[in-house]
Amino acid sequence: MKKLINDPKDVVRESLEGFALAHADIVEVVFDPLYVVRRDAPVRGKVAVISGGGSGHEPMHSGYVGKGMLDAAIPGQVFTSPTPDQIEAATRAVDGGAGVLHIVKNYTGDILNFEMAAELCQDVEVQAVVINDDVAVEDSLYTAGRRGVGATVLAEKICGAAAERGYDIERVTGLCREVNHHTRSMGMALTSCTVPAAGKPTFELGAHEMEMGIGIHGEPGRERMPVQPVREIVKRLVETILADAAFADGHPVIAMVNGLGGTPVIELYLVYRELEHLLKSHGIPIARRLVGNYMTSLEMAGCSVTLLRAGEELISLWDDPVRTPGLRWGM
Amino acid sequence: MKKLINDPKDVVRESLEGFALAHADIVEVVFDPLYVVRRDAPVRGKVAVISGGGSGHEPMHSGYVGKGMLDAAIPGQVFTSPTPDQIEAATRAVDGGAGVLHIVKNYTGDILNFEMAAELCQDVEVQAVVINDDVAVEDSLYTAGRRGVGATVLAEKICGAAAERGYDIERVTGLCREVNHHTRSMGMALTSCTVPAAGKPTFELGAHEMEMGIGIHGEPGRERMPVQPVREIVKRLVETILADAAFADGHPVIAMVNGLGGTPVIELYLVYRELEHLLKSHGIPIARRLVGNYMTSLEMAGCSVTLLRAGEELISLWDDPVRTPGLRWGM
Repeated sequence: MKKLINDPKDVVRESLEGFALAHADIVEVVFDPLYVVRRDAPVRGKVAVISGGGSGHEPMHSGYVGKGMLDAAIPGQVFTSPTPDQIEAATRAVDGGAGVLHIVKNYTGDILNFEMAAELCQDVEVQAVVINDDVAVEDSLYTAGRRGVGATVLAEKICGAAAERGYDIERVTGLCREVNHHTRSMGMALTSCTVPAAGKPTFELGAHEMEMGIGIHGEPGRERMPVQPVREIVKRLVETILADAAFADGHPVIAMVNGLGGTPVIELYLVYRELEHLLKSHGIPIARRLVGNYMTSLEMAGCSVTLLRAGEELISLWDDPVRTPGLRWGM
Repeated sequence: MKKLINDPKDVVRESLEGFALAHADIVEVVFDPLYVVRRDAPVRGKVAVISGGGSGHEPMHSGYVGKGMLDAAIPGQVFTSPTPDQIEAATRAVDGGAGVLHIVKNYTGDILNFEMAAELCQDVEVQAVVINDDVAVEDSLYTAGRRGVGATVLAEKICGAAAERGYDIERVTGLCREVNHHTRSMGMALTSCTVPAAGKPTFELGAHEMEMGIGIHGEPGRERMPVQPVREIVKRLVETILADAAFADGHPVIAMVNGLGGTPVIELYLVYRELEHLLKSHGIPIARRLVGNYMTSLEMAGCSVTLLRAGEELISLWDDPVRTPGLRWGM
């Protein structure tokens, strides 16, 4: 295992120490129990939006803490759920009296621990939305039902903007459900990643193999097959997504082409090119897009495609200013 | 070779087609001859700042085209200099009557071709600054003298801001020389990268080896050694940089921790943590910083550290708003 680390057991803490030093103007990192919080939290009278999950998916979630997006993020160890006491402490730290929305990816450990944290915060108005946008598989290694993936990034941006506008907890929660309802994603991997504490690749792929429908922790996908040209790969991802939900009615989408951490940007734009051509042939305009590494799996090579069927309100919330370490525009 | 591409010979063109579709609000890509230009170019009365070089280093340079940074970028094939006709066309496209600054990385092919382009544009006031901040080696596979690396990103930001403020060509050029003069960089690699047209890794590194002082095209560095903890790696990089120039006098720096394309963000923050601790012990405050993938070598795993000894004017120019696909704040 070759990594830019000291001791595998210190990776998450030391990385967050560096993150705290680098972004002290935006965030504060509390280490016991561990969570990342907006420097100006709690914001009185504003709904707070928080999320969390295993580390190794950076910039998600800690990189999305800041004005216009998350009030706090709760990182677990690599690919490991955060604990209820962490989530409880973060919830209390951001509560400005207007309620706290938990955006939870559909993994069994995350669901359980966010639920336990909500029970520990009965004096705070907590709402939770479970994100489950991955069309690749039903049920998985760590999930009952569909996995939560790229929709999480879109939901964090849109709900963060809604909270910043002063929307109440019901409306912010409703928007989160709407984003999840209208989003579908699917990913693929060219290589595995190596969890530092494990010291070896999570799975093995042959020199000419890829895995379609991969999970963000390396959970098995739909099928393993010889590597194809990118136009075939994107076609498979997009056709699976379009077969699952009503996208092809001329409604615009917000599209995300996401790198899994080890894919160079030059390739992600090849993916985007195929995506835009393909959606055009289906009569689907792309209203907004992100192309980059937004939800990674350590150094895994591969990509995912996320499509959100978005009306005017969602697009307008998308365009609102955001200032976080991982996503920034308008300020 | 596993990559998200169609045909290796089409990688640069198809990637830039995707880039053009994704960022049509900011850039236009002209394909014959090939260059990337600000959508509102030429800006009358403003000094234009342009740069270029081989592809494979994304977001550099095309990702830095936009308000507050570059007026145009000229991409060559992967790790291959752009041709004089491309550079000439870009220079003419951005000339707003106030002169054009060429920011040129010190590689023999780039130098020659930018010089030839300047000769072809004798009716345009062209100034050129050669960037040579890499302390790793004197002379190299493609370079006489030191290689140009991370200082290029800083120079593009600062000179772009100066041009946007309305500074004249002498002043913008002087600032570029100042940035280059006060910047030092060094990088290291854990893995090689694979040029698509070559189809195999540029060099071989053993399973437990790293290369200190690597060039951004995989040119040999200073030494090959067993992988060390990140604290030792950063110490070697920083001590080589500090031994080369007068940094340790309490003057603040702009610091960049740059990933080479295949390094996950979680590791780059570990690098940043070591860097800030180490500079603190030398009495050097970090005034501003970038942590991320800003100047890559395809999917190479590794990092580089860049330090710019910056006075108030440079920091103020750094803080000016910028809106490009690869770097954005304040608008």
